[in-house]
Amino acid sequence: MCRDSLGGFPHEQTQRAVLFSLLNDRAEVGREESGQASQTTVPNRTVLTAQLFFNTVCVCVCVCVCVCMQSCHATKPDMLNVHLVPHTHDDVGWLKTVDQYYYGDRNDIQHAGVQYILDSVVDQLIKNPDRRFIYVETAFFYRWWKQQSSATQQTVKQLVDEGRLEFVNGGWCMSDEATTHYSAVIDQMTIGLRFLNETFGPCGRPRVAWHIDPFGHAREHASMFAQMGYDGLFFGRLDYQDRAHRMREKEQELLWRASDSLTPPMADLFTGILPNGYNPPEGFCWDQFCDDPPIRDDPDLEDYNVDDVVKRFLAIAKNQATVYKTNHIIMTMGSDFQYENANLWYKNLDKLIHYVNALQAKGSKVNVLYSTPSCYLQELHRANLTWALKTDDFFPYADDAHDFWTGYFTSRPALKRYERISNGNLQVICNQLEVLGGPVSRKGPFGEGDSQTMKKAMAVAQHHDAVSGTEKQHVANDYARKLAEGWQHCQVVVSNSLAGLSSSSAERIYCDNLNVSVCPLTESSKKFSVNVYNPLAQPVNWAVRLPVNGTAYSVSDAKGRSVDCQVGVRNRGFAVNELVFQVQAPPLGYTIYFVSLRQDGPPPASTQPRPPTVIKNKFLQVTFDPDTGLLSSLSNLETKQTIKLTQNFYWYNASDGKNMDSSQPSGAYIFRPNSSTPFGISRTAKTETVQTSVVQEVRQWFAPWVSQVVRLYTDSRTLELEWTVGPVPIDDHLGKEVITRLDTSIKTSEIFYTDSNGREVLQRRKDFRPTWQLKQSEPIAGNYYPINSRAFIKDDEDQLTVVTDRSQGGASIQNGSLEIMLHRRLLYDDFRGVGEPLNEISSIFPEGLVVRGRLLLSLDRPPTAADTHRPLAQQVVLQPLLTFTDGELNSNTRLEFSGLQAALPPAVHLLTLTQWDKDKVLLRLEHQFQSWESKRNSKPVTVNLQKLFSTLDVLGASELNLSANQWKDEMSRFDWTPQTGTGHPHLPMEIRTFLLRVRLR
Amino acid sequence: MCRDSLGGFPHEQTQRAVLFSLLNDRAEVGREESGQASQTTVPNRTVLTAQLFFNTVCVCVCVCVCVCMQSCHATKPDMLNVHLVPHTHDDVGWLKTVDQYYYGDRNDIQHAGVQYILDSVVDQLIKNPDRRFIYVETAFFYRWWKQQSSATQQTVKQLVDEGRLEFVNGGWCMSDEATTHYSAVIDQMTIGLRFLNETFGPCGRPRVAWHIDPFGHAREHASMFAQMGYDGLFFGRLDYQDRAHRMREKEQELLWRASDSLTPPMADLFTGILPNGYNPPEGFCWDQFCDDPPIRDDPDLEDYNVDDVVKRFLAIAKNQATVYKTNHIIMTMGSDFQYENANLWYKNLDKLIHYVNALQAKGSKVNVLYSTPSCYLQELHRANLTWALKTDDFFPYADDAHDFWTGYFTSRPALKRYERISNGNLQVICNQLEVLGGPVSRKGPFGEGDSQTMKKAMAVAQHHDAVSGTEKQHVANDYARKLAEGWQHCQVVVSNSLAGLSSSSAERIYCDNLNVSVCPLTESSKKFSVNVYNPLAQPVNWAVRLPVNGTAYSVSDAKGRSVDCQVGVRNRGFAVNELVFQVQAPPLGYTIYFVSLRQDGPPPASTQPRPPTVIKNKFLQVTFDPDTGLLSSLSNLETKQTIKLTQNFYWYNASDGKNMDSSQPSGAYIFRPNSSTPFGISRTAKTETVQTSVVQEVRQWFAPWVSQVVRLYTDSRTLELEWTVGPVPIDDHLGKEVITRLDTSIKTSEIFYTDSNGREVLQRRKDFRPTWQLKQSEPIAGNYYPINSRAFIKDDEDQLTVVTDRSQGGASIQNGSLEIMLHRRLLYDDFRGVGEPLNEISSIFPEGLVVRGRLLLSLDRPPTAADTHRPLAQQVVLQPLLTFTDGELNSNTRLEFSGLQAALPPAVHLLTLTQWDKDKVLLRLEHQFQSWESKRNSKPVTVNLQKLFSTLDVLGASELNLSANQWKDEMSRFDWTPQTGTGHPHLPMEIRTFLLRVRLR
Repeated sequence: MCRDSLGGFPHEQTQRAVLFSLLNDRAEVGREESGQASQTTVPNRTVLTAQLFFNTVCVCVCVCVCVCMQSCHATKPDMLNVHLVPHTHDDVGWLKTVDQYYYGDRNDIQHAGVQYILDSVVDQLIKNPDRRFIYVETAFFYRWWKQQSSATQQTVKQLVDEGRLEFVNGGWCMSDEATTHYSAVIDQMTIGLRFLNETFGPCGRPRVAWHIDPFGHAREHASMFAQMGYDGLFFGRLDYQDRAHRMREKEQELLWRASDSLTPPMADLFTGILPNGYNPPEGFCWDQFCDDPPIRDDPDLEDYNVDDVVKRFLAIAKNQATVYKTNHIIMTMGSDFQYENANLWYKNLDKLIHYVNALQAKGSKVNVLYSTPSCYLQELHRANLTWALKTDDFFPYADDAHDFWTGYFTSRPALKRYERISNGNLQVICNQLEVLGGPVSRKGPFGEGDSQTMKKAMAVAQHHDAVSGTEKQHVANDYARKLAEGWQHCQVVVSNSLAGLSSSSAERIYCDNLNVSVCPLTESSKKFSVNVYNPLAQPVNWAVRLPVNGTAYSVSDAKGRSVDCQVGVRNRGFAVNELVFQVQAPPLGYTIYFVSLRQDGPPPASTQPRPPTVIKNKFLQVTFDPDTGLLSSLSNLETKQTIKLTQNFYWYNASDGKNMDSSQPSGAYIFRPNSSTPFGISRTAKTETVQTSVVQEVRQWFAPWVSQVVRLYTDSRTLELEWTVGPVPIDDHLGKEVITRLDTSIKTSEIFYTDSNGREVLQRRKDFRPTWQLKQSEPIAGNYYPINSRAFIKDDEDQLTVVTDRSQGGASIQNGSLEIMLHRRLLYDDFRGVGEPLNEISSIFPEGLVVRGRLLLSLDRPPTAADTHRPLAQQVVLQPLLTFTDGELNSNTRLEFSGLQAALPPAVHLLTLTQWDKDKVLLRLEHQFQSWESKRNSKPVTVNLQKLFSTLDVLGASELNLSANQWKDEMSRFDWTPQTGTGHPHLPMEIRTFLLRVRLR
Repeated sequence: MCRDSLGGFPHEQTQRAVLFSLLNDRAEVGREESGQASQTTVPNRTVLTAQLFFNTVCVCVCVCVCVCMQSCHATKPDMLNVHLVPHTHDDVGWLKTVDQYYYGDRNDIQHAGVQYILDSVVDQLIKNPDRRFIYVETAFFYRWWKQQSSATQQTVKQLVDEGRLEFVNGGWCMSDEATTHYSAVIDQMTIGLRFLNETFGPCGRPRVAWHIDPFGHAREHASMFAQMGYDGLFFGRLDYQDRAHRMREKEQELLWRASDSLTPPMADLFTGILPNGYNPPEGFCWDQFCDDPPIRDDPDLEDYNVDDVVKRFLAIAKNQATVYKTNHIIMTMGSDFQYENANLWYKNLDKLIHYVNALQAKGSKVNVLYSTPSCYLQELHRANLTWALKTDDFFPYADDAHDFWTGYFTSRPALKRYERISNGNLQVICNQLEVLGGPVSRKGPFGEGDSQTMKKAMAVAQHHDAVSGTEKQHVANDYARKLAEGWQHCQVVVSNSLAGLSSSSAERIYCDNLNVSVCPLTESSKKFSVNVYNPLAQPVNWAVRLPVNGTAYSVSDAKGRSVDCQVGVRNRGFAVNELVFQVQAPPLGYTIYFVSLRQDGPPPASTQPRPPTVIKNKFLQVTFDPDTGLLSSLSNLETKQTIKLTQNFYWYNASDGKNMDSSQPSGAYIFRPNSSTPFGISRTAKTETVQTSVVQEVRQWFAPWVSQVVRLYTDSRTLELEWTVGPVPIDDHLGKEVITRLDTSIKTSEIFYTDSNGREVLQRRKDFRPTWQLKQSEPIAGNYYPINSRAFIKDDEDQLTVVTDRSQGGASIQNGSLEIMLHRRLLYDDFRGVGEPLNEISSIFPEGLVVRGRLLLSLDRPPTAADTHRPLAQQVVLQPLLTFTDGELNSNTRLEFSGLQAALPPAVHLLTLTQWDKDKVLLRLEHQFQSWESKRNSKPVTVNLQKLFSTLDVLGASELNLSANQWKDEMSRFDWTPQTGTGHPHLPMEIRTFLLRVRLR
């Protein structure tokens, strides 16, 4: 059966495990499990093996693919071919929740019901085999599919097989590109594409990435799409100046080289910019939401308008053809939640095609056809032209001179953080522990759990109106609720798994509110243990901070050694004190620490109200200005480098749209400061210092609503700035966009750097775009870029890297300066549809949301900075999970565990380890250094898969594309020729994806 | 073939023509055409003959009907059965034109596209054989049907045969009941039902009249529906007090005895008042226009709500059952233009039925089913109960204390007049002349013409937002345009026909603007002839008034006799003078008058500026108050009766909704005067008198915008008041509702009389409703009733009858007084959906619409008044058509023609004579007197059909129901028992409908 090609290993042809090296194609055959030695080195053996595995399958696949592609309507080489692409754009949550959208509930907010869209489209496709439709969001399609009768399912399968219904993109949602982390994007794509693959087989595999709505486009997304096997990407939104330039130059279709590390064409992606966003041309919207005149072709009735419609259409088509390169053009016939009554569209499209093409008999040279993005792309490919090469990204996005969509980089900072925690702390750990713990994880002493709920919750949270912060408040609440529900299901998995791994079924207690220093257990218990689970493939050092009410505690590690710990006065939360100690956890495993109360009552006051001039450990030295209480310098004591560094908090006054050159206010999407000069919150900070053997803290108060703890752990190479902002005051009726700004002595030459979706780093230059002559109209908002995990500024000597704990917007406006937007509270809607001002209030925060976060600063020499910030950023994304057990542990409890035989090299990140089906797991290993970043780490690494796990035998391994919906050796993407040659090959920044057949030892 | 049962005469079994008597069942067999004498009297022979004719057909019909009825879903006798009736209400024009509604054009005004509704419903009916749908408006269905493939047509036929798609009502539109004339209503029902009959056969014949939206209900409509064979009527709107009372008494289902003349149950109609207007119960609207929560029955998704939905539904059903009599209740599941995406409705209704009925297993006693009005009615009939009897009507309609829908009785007076002219003058004549002229009428010397265009234009004009005046301005314009276009097509028929009948192909000139005294021919020609065509079955006297520029003319009749004529100074129009002469035209025929110019230039001034005290002819004497210039008395010189009569013009100040007890303003629908006392326009009139041998006129000026000509023709028994009102001034920002009031010495005892749709007359009593204790809250608007053709006041001695030339609202507020609303100009919308103030302005009337009309007054003794007003009203409805020929006529021109062998008796009105198909014509003869009206005329009359026509041989005749879609002897309606006995039998006021097979002699 070709349908289940990825569903399992059809033949047990090999017992061989696979050795392979990342970054090249060498593969070694390891030992067979049976113990036979076969240590021969066979280049490409992995690939060959996979081919052997699925040879019979492959034939079948090819047939299916051929059927799909043959379904493209014939075009006419001597004519202008207009590809009409009927489509619906179904936001996986925005003004309504994803389930409200699915059912068509709360139509008072927005009329939209996806169940009906799919019902209707299927009906209408059946009526006329010429018709085509594409569907995008698997989160919705999945909901619909499982409610259909088997007869309907069979019908839909046939439509898919015949290419009449084509899936494009096919992820669970259409992810946001500015605020998502690549790991969550890969996961959400994987679950969507897996569903399509298992349901429809190869004909259900999307060939085209379709990101028509996201508000700017990340290079890393293009890179991922390329590695997922997509032949091309289409989108609708780009800077209006960029579009105008590309229209002039006929460069709206281009080749995007999306990595400076991966060897082309590995991350090359053909990219098409759609002509009307994703809407139909003006006057040709026939959805129930539209008011354009239908084709009235009954000559007996009033207002016969066929001639007029055809004339208008031909004019638009010919005009559009002048800004594209080939004799093929595409028109998106659909929009948001359209096709709920597909008959309206198709009835009129049928007529349009009929009447326009009828003119060919009279010499017209325009040919209209139903098409799909992949059919259109196929024609572009056949044209065999060269295409403009692009190596930067499409940020920031402005749709007019004062309308920069750079506010959402920061909108809803608490949701952005919760999404990030959910991804790393919860989803990844849940997935890992489900694998490591075996079947008992899903059903064990603590009941039935699953990782699916969290996976789906995370998948919808990647939507471009979810983590982006551009949804309505009630929808944001729903995303958070879904994540919390996912975590409930995960907690059972984690408890079961850890119970199994540790041989202890003691009740496991979760302190989900440690971020606000609340944990009833630690606050009351006299004796408890802390399980520190580390999801990274490398050991981790981590500072544990627990709210307690005692004055003195003793802490010991799994080996019984005493651990230095400190009790300080809490500056927040309900507990009196805070217990701080440093832990170290093994790779992909846990260790347990024991805490005992020694003395009750408050600790002796250890704070020094007078500002210190300096705090330091063996790695860093930080000085403060005694007059202002602000940071004044940062030194790396190892590299012996020092920079001037002051840091303060400011706010931009959000435009209310009532003054200046346009009526655009700041809102959930748009950032538009009223003035380019931010208001300072305070020129000085009230400070307090806590210095212990574990940590040194300078606590700064700038205003009742802005405070910060500058924190240096004894063993840390990074300086932590833990900021707390909110409730942002609005009693002055001014919306505020709060930033922190680091002003340094680094000579930045108007350049700074930001990461793309947490992976490769791109250079940003003030008032500059690499591919066109920018006319800057918003000196602040027009220079903001998304920061997903890090940003840095550097010169030849110094690099100051800031690792963030969530996605935020940032900019470098002044020389040596780096600013990051932390929080936004706005009083006006920004007219992009959400219909609410971004003014987060809840029952917990009736005065307005308070947000807390951390910036981690490292100062390095530029050539070695990545050696610090790459692992550091992964530690922030995948921070350890702390779980607690009250009282003594059973004596036979296993106090330490690592799922790996050994830690992986620093360059290799264990990106994914998750159960695939009963006996298989999905593994992704990532080389996390860019080619130019690190002498030490930017080079190939070899990992022995068979020797990877301590508790799992790898019985078989097959390599897949990045999204795990195609065997890697079956990937065959269109090849495209860039106008400017093939570029220089780089060492790739590779992610490799394997399906491992495993057995728990 | 049962399908074409009315399409033709299947067997030529008889050559007999049929004699019959109206008002009883005797039938005589006349002479055979072959000349054989067979003068035997055979009771019911007509019927028997028809039965013989169609005996074989009848069997087939019965089978089909059985199939349809069997399709009703089974009900459960021990449960409450809830009949869900999916339906759409598709206005044949309102906010958009009928064609815009059909196509879904101008969705910016209102989203509605009937083509898609029918597409969608058919698709959804196919999906589940349990589903049902009813369709109402054939104007739309016809448009749709002719665009369907034969495969779709076959599918729809099957749906109809199986009762899954049921037609109800089935006229071309759902006619207005307050402002329509019965003749036009019968015609529009006939063309709609004929289409259904010819397309679907007996299964397409509606069993139920469905007037869910009209704003009040006329008794004559019920009478017509009964005579059309309907088993019952359902509607949605009635007075809120009436509804409350009927809910208390469980009398929302009743038996309406709709005639005081026709023998029961001939005009008895079971009438059901729907529970929620025609909307679904609250919370259960699942159309795309609605926001009610869909049934969310996937337990995996958020907000599973099945239990809540079922609970709410059961509560509503049980509550509704308490105000109806049986264990069956009906719920209308639909509304205006709903079901464009029928999937939304049906998907949720399927679930509702499933989940509600599933509770029966747990003891629930509620059974929900898809149903139709006829299936519901069948269950009511089976219940075999007695029902409240009602003999009055449902006017006026108020939906709240200050919200009386009595404004539309007068709204758009010019459109109302144009519709009336179009019906009588144009449609009837066009139909008649098409028959009389034979095939050459449709294709002759003047080209190709047809009566269909006018018939359809008239049919849509009957819609309850058309002639009612409650549509948007651009839609009103479209109705008028359609009528004008229909008349263009008719003019060709008329020209061809008259050319054939008169043997003259001289160019025929139409002066369509004679109402404003514009006729280029008569204004310039020195010699012309006037063809006067009389559509009545009796000869007619008529005053011809032509604009001319000469001083003296000679006029002669067809026999060459000189005719008294008069040239007077025009008081309007472009011509200098006006030529007036009296003509007499033969029944169903024409005569020609010749006019020659004698002298050019203006006539000698004949007007007397001083008010006369009296004008008189041999029948009437009219006196004026010399001080005021107003009428002061009216005398009938034959009967020697005199009444005091003053008449003046007033206006009510239309409420702007900003004061008083409610925010309801006057608008297109609602009449709500700000004060019960109207403002006088002027206490005195400036007058001028013209007295000639032909006519005496007193011209009165009340204001620049109100004038009147009081006119008494020498040979006339009626006094004509030709009023001109407009532009109604609004520079005082006050909306105005202009009335004329006749104040008399008649002792009316708060009673007056109005006709119902131009037929039977109903008594109206001030502040009183016959079936419930009225709590009057609007002393003026709450006493207004529709006047379609006449109103009268009377006491024992005197009856003053006013015949109107269009539908108007009227009341009798004071003793002896009768007021008629003539014109309305309003500044506010009245919140009933039209969204425009009724403020008629056009390029011709930029300052506001000017309207002219006539009231014809007759003063009689009550027992004989009808002998005057019955024929008079028909003369106004079917006034003669004047056509003109310039210069001399050909010498062999036939100068006089009558289509009848002899005039019919005064009691018999020739209601319909129209071509049915190639060799058959449809004939309707009407007894036009109520049983109590006239000693002379309220009795049976015999008409010999074979001897009826002068130029047509009647080869066969079959009697039909009123709407001509069923053989009369096959009519078998449900019988219902009234609570209060069967009432007294009356002499019927019968209309008999025949299909005649004819041959032109």
